[in-house]
Amino acid sequence: MKPIIEVAARAGIDEEHLELYGKYKAKMNPSLTQERKNRPDGKLVLVTAVNPTPAGEGKTLTTIGLTQALQALDVNAVAALREPSLGPCFGMKGGSTGGGKAQIVPAEDINLHFTGDLHAVSSAHNLLSALIDNHIYQGNALRLDPKKVVWKRAVDMNDRGLRSIVTGLGAGNGLPQESGFLITSASEVMAVLCLSENAADLKKRLERIVVGYTSEGEAVTAAMLDAAEGMAILLKDAIKPNLVQTLDGTPVIVHGGPFANIAHGCSSVIGTKTALKLGDVVVTEAGFGAELGAEKFFDIKCRQAGLRPDAAVLVVTAKALKYNGGVPAKELGEENTRALAAGMDNLNRHLRNLQAFGVPVLVAVNHFAADYESELHLIFDACRELGVAAELSDVWAEGAAGGAALARSLMRILEQQPSRHAPLYEASLSLKDKIKTIVTRLYGGSDVSYAPAASKALADFERRGFGELPVCMAKTPYSFSDRASLLGAPEGFTVSVSRVSLSAGAGFVVVETGNTMTMPGLPKVPAASRMRLETDGTIEGLL
Amino acid sequence: MKPIIEVAARAGIDEEHLELYGKYKAKMNPSLTQERKNRPDGKLVLVTAVNPTPAGEGKTLTTIGLTQALQALDVNAVAALREPSLGPCFGMKGGSTGGGKAQIVPAEDINLHFTGDLHAVSSAHNLLSALIDNHIYQGNALRLDPKKVVWKRAVDMNDRGLRSIVTGLGAGNGLPQESGFLITSASEVMAVLCLSENAADLKKRLERIVVGYTSEGEAVTAAMLDAAEGMAILLKDAIKPNLVQTLDGTPVIVHGGPFANIAHGCSSVIGTKTALKLGDVVVTEAGFGAELGAEKFFDIKCRQAGLRPDAAVLVVTAKALKYNGGVPAKELGEENTRALAAGMDNLNRHLRNLQAFGVPVLVAVNHFAADYESELHLIFDACRELGVAAELSDVWAEGAAGGAALARSLMRILEQQPSRHAPLYEASLSLKDKIKTIVTRLYGGSDVSYAPAASKALADFERRGFGELPVCMAKTPYSFSDRASLLGAPEGFTVSVSRVSLSAGAGFVVVETGNTMTMPGLPKVPAASRMRLETDGTIEGLL
Repeated sequence: MKPIIEVAARAGIDEEHLELYGKYKAKMNPSLTQERKNRPDGKLVLVTAVNPTPAGEGKTLTTIGLTQALQALDVNAVAALREPSLGPCFGMKGGSTGGGKAQIVPAEDINLHFTGDLHAVSSAHNLLSALIDNHIYQGNALRLDPKKVVWKRAVDMNDRGLRSIVTGLGAGNGLPQESGFLITSASEVMAVLCLSENAADLKKRLERIVVGYTSEGEAVTAAMLDAAEGMAILLKDAIKPNLVQTLDGTPVIVHGGPFANIAHGCSSVIGTKTALKLGDVVVTEAGFGAELGAEKFFDIKCRQAGLRPDAAVLVVTAKALKYNGGVPAKELGEENTRALAAGMDNLNRHLRNLQAFGVPVLVAVNHFAADYESELHLIFDACRELGVAAELSDVWAEGAAGGAALARSLMRILEQQPSRHAPLYEASLSLKDKIKTIVTRLYGGSDVSYAPAASKALADFERRGFGELPVCMAKTPYSFSDRASLLGAPEGFTVSVSRVSLSAGAGFVVVETGNTMTMPGLPKVPAASRMRLETDGTIEGLL
Repeated sequence: MKPIIEVAARAGIDEEHLELYGKYKAKMNPSLTQERKNRPDGKLVLVTAVNPTPAGEGKTLTTIGLTQALQALDVNAVAALREPSLGPCFGMKGGSTGGGKAQIVPAEDINLHFTGDLHAVSSAHNLLSALIDNHIYQGNALRLDPKKVVWKRAVDMNDRGLRSIVTGLGAGNGLPQESGFLITSASEVMAVLCLSENAADLKKRLERIVVGYTSEGEAVTAAMLDAAEGMAILLKDAIKPNLVQTLDGTPVIVHGGPFANIAHGCSSVIGTKTALKLGDVVVTEAGFGAELGAEKFFDIKCRQAGLRPDAAVLVVTAKALKYNGGVPAKELGEENTRALAAGMDNLNRHLRNLQAFGVPVLVAVNHFAADYESELHLIFDACRELGVAAELSDVWAEGAAGGAALARSLMRILEQQPSRHAPLYEASLSLKDKIKTIVTRLYGGSDVSYAPAASKALADFERRGFGELPVCMAKTPYSFSDRASLLGAPEGFTVSVSRVSLSAGAGFVVVETGNTMTMPGLPKVPAASRMRLETDGTIEGLL
């Protein structure tokens, strides 16, 4: 690991723009992008994936490895990634900083408290929660209806017992009220942080957050509760992007970590824009498969921030294609070219979808040691037939060398295929028409049905002037549809919208299909129980 | 403000021992004290106070100003202070980093997230909470009785609605259970962090935390839930003391912030011991008045850590003495030498108490611009009669110069009056005898009464082998007794113990008189509502 000052220096960043957090992490001040405001932006590449197996397909790994490989080709490359959350880290899956020879470091720090951004988001979120309850307790001058408070609390921990709670019990402790906790990544404050252009925009977005309604139905905002300034103060450092490095010393910006269901699942706009002022090629990723992650990246993040993506890398694994071809999760280790061929439908639809957004696509076949040659051949043959460039990516085992072909192919695309990026729908469409466009044009569905309350709420949001907002779809990541079992490339299905909600600060309308989990639980044997802190300070079981 | 590297260098700290958090904050690695393990410790001075008015008497201010004044006399002085909590900062009182010309800086950072220690404590606390509920949910192999879980959750925010809650409502969300949130400073994890000698001791203490009991009455610990390692991992950086500076560049260690009621109210042992290896004189403080703060400092912190205090500075204000002499809070601005003379009883008893601990005492009269000369004269005359050195302290208005007399007087005492420090009671006394000793010998009370459940619990703790632990008294800070209205130096009262609890990790038995508030509420107009973040990044209303 190189001192972060050295990594920064090689990226041309003067130390005066940095705030060090130890020797290997730094926050970057706005003075940096200010200084470079006339430098042309680098090219922006999105890493996304087909519909995954429950184990995931390696988007983060590919993003990191591809960036390392680009650097090895002497390309000035920067990665822009999301920040891990403590909840999953101590719960199911351990850290999210890549693996093998494609990692970002210091991995332990990044997976633990890092530079405190998630804690700052929790604090800002919970300050607003406390101010809401206190406002009601202290006379309720705004006449906020306690039954119409939609703002919950937040904690960065997997704690199922906090999903649904009653607060304010006992004398002097306020009003008994239904409430609950979201995991911090699901907080609208996180989405706000990630979509803000700068500190002033952050404050304006915080002001717009709708926390509930009066009994007459008027929206009550954070601004009306005098909460936005205090929240912005708590977020004043969190808004600055964090600089770390890959195992090869490539600069990586890790900033912001919103959920990919009720939020948009992309790292911060400020982080991406800073990366574009630093690198000639910026590689970033979005959560879940392309029908969720890429769609929101294009239609929410790029639209709001005025970003123009230049290419997309679609990560695929043999296992994911077999899974989409109907093989149960337990049997994915067995050779099955027939199922894999069937699963190519899934890849094909994602490919067409990405092309519909006007971006050139490159397929990255994330290689596992146990992969069958026959299956890999089949994938490459199929991609050739589909007319899309595809490369094997072996960055876990080989690091930069394992991503060399992918990086070269990407550079060819960036040089030869201009992007004609456009969002999928116009802002002026009605909210229901936006949803229908996504469902029919991307998902392959034929219709959308609405719970009566959801229909009413959408009409209500439009009446309140939020009709121009993009929609943020929350659905299963395992299928194009809203049913996890409909694998491959299903057609003719109806997507059922169960609930919609307004994220007026983030600037989107959340559209939920089924129950969206915003507070994960812990498994029978949580990752936390297998961790060890050795006496020499090394940590076992975290990564 | 000097770069913290410079402040460290002047204290002889090599940069290799530091982890920078920006330019003006650093954590110090254990390698520092290791390197200096053969250097003789500096002298240890405790700053404490008489029973206060609701506005407080300026212990933190005096600690900071005195340290600045010592440095101005060319004494190698270091201050060791507690970390502020976000809750009070956004609630009632704003920051706690001194004021006027006696401040520690960067004040805003210290009052906000600082180096993330409180967030780490919240995370470790809530990881344990989640693991407890998950253990019950996943089959409850330890047969923990859900009704006998004593471990709550923690958040660093004033949120009265979270004091008493029911969790686990709704299908799949665990078992409906009574719970609640403490403010983070009231968490046993904070007390554990502050009393640990090193990382290994921290882990052992975390393992010992009792979270509840089986229906057969067996204690269930964090170790039995495999929680301590994960908690220790979350605290691995929080355990390192933080270095900042006064306005004059004096080194200050700000580390740990436990409540002064259900915890011991002192900054960390590691911070104090590091300070003793850096400075020739270390000035530290303890929460509330001396009968609570100093008693716990001596009987809990010094006893556990083997610290030998060399002197105590007793902070007094004319207002506090008048308040103790019977003047209502609203009339404290008026001259009233008679009430002040009566209030000297309070000072006198604190003085005798401190002397009973064997430490030389110096009275610091914290000066306010509106003080009456007549009243100040009376205080000094009375101190002369009591045979105790007393000096005016004007560090708010004058900084180091305003503390010069106090610093000189302190140095004379340290040179001429050896400390014969001993704790008030032996560890071998029964828990009830320890409580009685404190009540009769320090408070001036005549007896202690116990709620039946408290009596039973004390006997139970002794049976479980916790009888040798010191007791941690939780009572009103306004009176020697457990009634806030009994001012001055009351006698003959009975202290009523309502509830006792075991902090097996911290290593004390909490003795509550009345209801101890462990989660503050917000006032009608919270400090948060008056704050502003200006576009140039300056913050109004925080300090």
